[in-house]
Amino acid sequence: MDTDTISAISTPIGEGAIAIVRLSGENAVSIANQVFQGKDLEELSSHTIHYGKLIDPETDELVEEVMVTVMRGPKTFTREDIVEINCHGGLVSVNRVLELVLSNGARLAEPGEFTKRAFLNGRIDLSQAEAVMDLIRAKTDRAMNIALKQMDGRLSMLIQTLRQELLETVAHVEVNIDYPEYDDVEEMTNRILIEKSKKVLEQIEQLLETAKQGKILREGIATAIIGRPNVGKSSLLNALAHENKAIVTEIPGTTRDVIEEYVNVRGVPLRLVDTAGIRDTEDIVEKIGVERSRQVLKEADLILLVLNYGDEFTEEDKRLFEAAKGMDKVVIINKTDLPQKLDLEEVRQVAGDVPIIQSAIIKEKGIDEIEAAIANLFFEGDLNTADLTYVSNARHIQLLKSARNALQEAMDGMEAGLPIDIVQIDVTRTWEILGEIIGDTVQESLIDQLFSQFCLGK
Amino acid sequence: MDTDTISAISTPIGEGAIAIVRLSGENAVSIANQVFQGKDLEELSSHTIHYGKLIDPETDELVEEVMVTVMRGPKTFTREDIVEINCHGGLVSVNRVLELVLSNGARLAEPGEFTKRAFLNGRIDLSQAEAVMDLIRAKTDRAMNIALKQMDGRLSMLIQTLRQELLETVAHVEVNIDYPEYDDVEEMTNRILIEKSKKVLEQIEQLLETAKQGKILREGIATAIIGRPNVGKSSLLNALAHENKAIVTEIPGTTRDVIEEYVNVRGVPLRLVDTAGIRDTEDIVEKIGVERSRQVLKEADLILLVLNYGDEFTEEDKRLFEAAKGMDKVVIINKTDLPQKLDLEEVRQVAGDVPIIQSAIIKEKGIDEIEAAIANLFFEGDLNTADLTYVSNARHIQLLKSARNALQEAMDGMEAGLPIDIVQIDVTRTWEILGEIIGDTVQESLIDQLFSQFCLGK
Repeated sequence: MDTDTISAISTPIGEGAIAIVRLSGENAVSIANQVFQGKDLEELSSHTIHYGKLIDPETDELVEEVMVTVMRGPKTFTREDIVEINCHGGLVSVNRVLELVLSNGARLAEPGEFTKRAFLNGRIDLSQAEAVMDLIRAKTDRAMNIALKQMDGRLSMLIQTLRQELLETVAHVEVNIDYPEYDDVEEMTNRILIEKSKKVLEQIEQLLETAKQGKILREGIATAIIGRPNVGKSSLLNALAHENKAIVTEIPGTTRDVIEEYVNVRGVPLRLVDTAGIRDTEDIVEKIGVERSRQVLKEADLILLVLNYGDEFTEEDKRLFEAAKGMDKVVIINKTDLPQKLDLEEVRQVAGDVPIIQSAIIKEKGIDEIEAAIANLFFEGDLNTADLTYVSNARHIQLLKSARNALQEAMDGMEAGLPIDIVQIDVTRTWEILGEIIGDTVQESLIDQLFSQFCLGK
Repeated sequence: MDTDTISAISTPIGEGAIAIVRLSGENAVSIANQVFQGKDLEELSSHTIHYGKLIDPETDELVEEVMVTVMRGPKTFTREDIVEINCHGGLVSVNRVLELVLSNGARLAEPGEFTKRAFLNGRIDLSQAEAVMDLIRAKTDRAMNIALKQMDGRLSMLIQTLRQELLETVAHVEVNIDYPEYDDVEEMTNRILIEKSKKVLEQIEQLLETAKQGKILREGIATAIIGRPNVGKSSLLNALAHENKAIVTEIPGTTRDVIEEYVNVRGVPLRLVDTAGIRDTEDIVEKIGVERSRQVLKEADLILLVLNYGDEFTEEDKRLFEAAKGMDKVVIINKTDLPQKLDLEEVRQVAGDVPIIQSAIIKEKGIDEIEAAIANLFFEGDLNTADLTYVSNARHIQLLKSARNALQEAMDGMEAGLPIDIVQIDVTRTWEILGEIIGDTVQESLIDQLFSQFCLGK
């Protein structure tokens, strides 16, 4: 395992008062000490913070005024020595500090490498490591609560309990294989096996039931607003965004085309698809509206289809309904402040069994109802994240499904009276699959791939 | 003066590994202690960092896993007690931590309020406080060096020296007024006065000479790329941006319309005007090109006018030259890989005395030459920020100009033989004006206004 000293910018990129450049590894303190003018960092007690200046040892030039925190392992996030350099939060400043430590012996950390070390050094398991990233990316309070609990080890403990039960079952089978002469042991073992397996299976099923909602809370609902030009798509977008403070995520280093916008609708994060399209085209190039909408539909999980109350129900509107057929949607009849021209009955017939909300968004009417309709579509009743352990991570969901299938096969085998050492293979496989969730039985290549999805500096 | 406890998010907004919520004020430690589960923060030594959990005392719910730094005044940035809570760098996480401390007795800090306290408590003067903000906003290494030196007090010391010299001059005048019976004292005083004032005036002039370049380094050059459709405006934009890693600044809470893009061309930051216009319109709405270009020109300090080597010199091209008349510009003749149709002589005549560069940007030819032409336009010879004290702040420049005028008036008065107590008024005024730069003689309303331009959390 690598023990070289890694470094990265650990705060978000942008303008702020403070930014942090973090170092971890056996030379973290000595590298920082080479460029720090103030106290001798090697002599200081652990977990203390100190004011000083960073000086480039090659040029003797002042690089920054900083606060430096020294934390000696193993009582750190990575269990290695960690130094955090708090500098001014500008783009130039923080890059300059990073370059300074890199040219004095640190290596640029890979994305997620700090957390990877925390995992490899046994401070957290894999599902906890994944929760760290979920927590950072959380778009709503609810998503954060799920991540926080997973980070706290709730999912891990549940998985460990299930694995323990499977292990006991396997142990039972071993006894049976070792003493095949007792016939009644076999019969009893079979009964206990089925009972225990059933119990584990039920708990896996319960976890999987939380998956759909968990995934939505974690990743947001890809939402497209479609409608003919001038029905009020921009107004709807702005109403949802302004009322809830839209979160704009930008992938660094790329152009504005990939900005993602999230709005938080009653705890449900909507990831708005192609808002650029909406904002740009509404006024400038009206004619490409419908064609563009069709493309957008492909990426969406939820459609907000907007109609104009003050206009006829046109062929174009019908084509939009046709294109959005079979998808989750909310129909919004906007501009009810205009004289009615829209045939509501006709809309209802074409729309079928989907919520239809009337609004005059520009007069701030109907926005609450739109939000309620969206929330109800995905969460019936009150959402209670406090008690449930949610599974939200696609990798976990996939593994739980595999575990369920393996265990189901084992049970089918038991009931069909298959030899118990055959059945045991499936039970052991279930145990292994569950282990992959917490990283007990996981391959190195997978670990590398997982952590590479992390953000830099974590 | 306020001594209540203020709090704000001090790291940039976005996704990152770590974010900091900072508290400053007499209750900083006790407020943090109310929500912190781990050690008793009140009992800890200053300048130490501690792991623990934030718990909402109202609901007993876990809010975050954090590291908390306790720093007791007066050895802090604000000279007050400061607590920094390092939490996970997600949007939800950091807002949640901020809300927790706000609902437990802290007040949301105004923009710049931490630095304002540092100023009011005498830790830094006004020009140093302004340098803090310049440092954070710096777009290039050179801009950062200017800010770093100003923060280190170089401008302050220079201003203080000038003020001291003026003060000595005034003292001399006082002597003269007190002992008017000695005629030769008056004559000598007048000579010394003129001499000293001239010396101060020269130094003010020297400072002002750095102002134009300083301002450019600090704020960037508002740059517009104009040209007919398909001449290669986007390619030029991308070439400048990609080669130099464009810095995209987003004003939080607003739409993408206000994103500013900076490219660093040999240490000169270009603030690109209306890149959205260029990116959107090049392919979609070609016809609005020229009209839009005209609007863009109004905001620009530098024009990059692009022509097509493989096309005739059109009336539209000429209209663009007409519109950009009298402005700093570089003419770029692009697409030299195409067969020549452009009459270079004609271009030269219309362009007059401005740099004309030939390029084939798509083949990566001529980009270096374009960058050199831009840099040369603003900085002749090598730019040496190491030795000069730059004035870059518009407020400082304005005050230096006022000081120069006041001192010039004083000198005119001396030479015209005005009574020395009249002359003294102008010298004292010069002394006061210079004092405003470092905040010695500045009004409270101005201070409030200055700090309100800071970013939150600083």
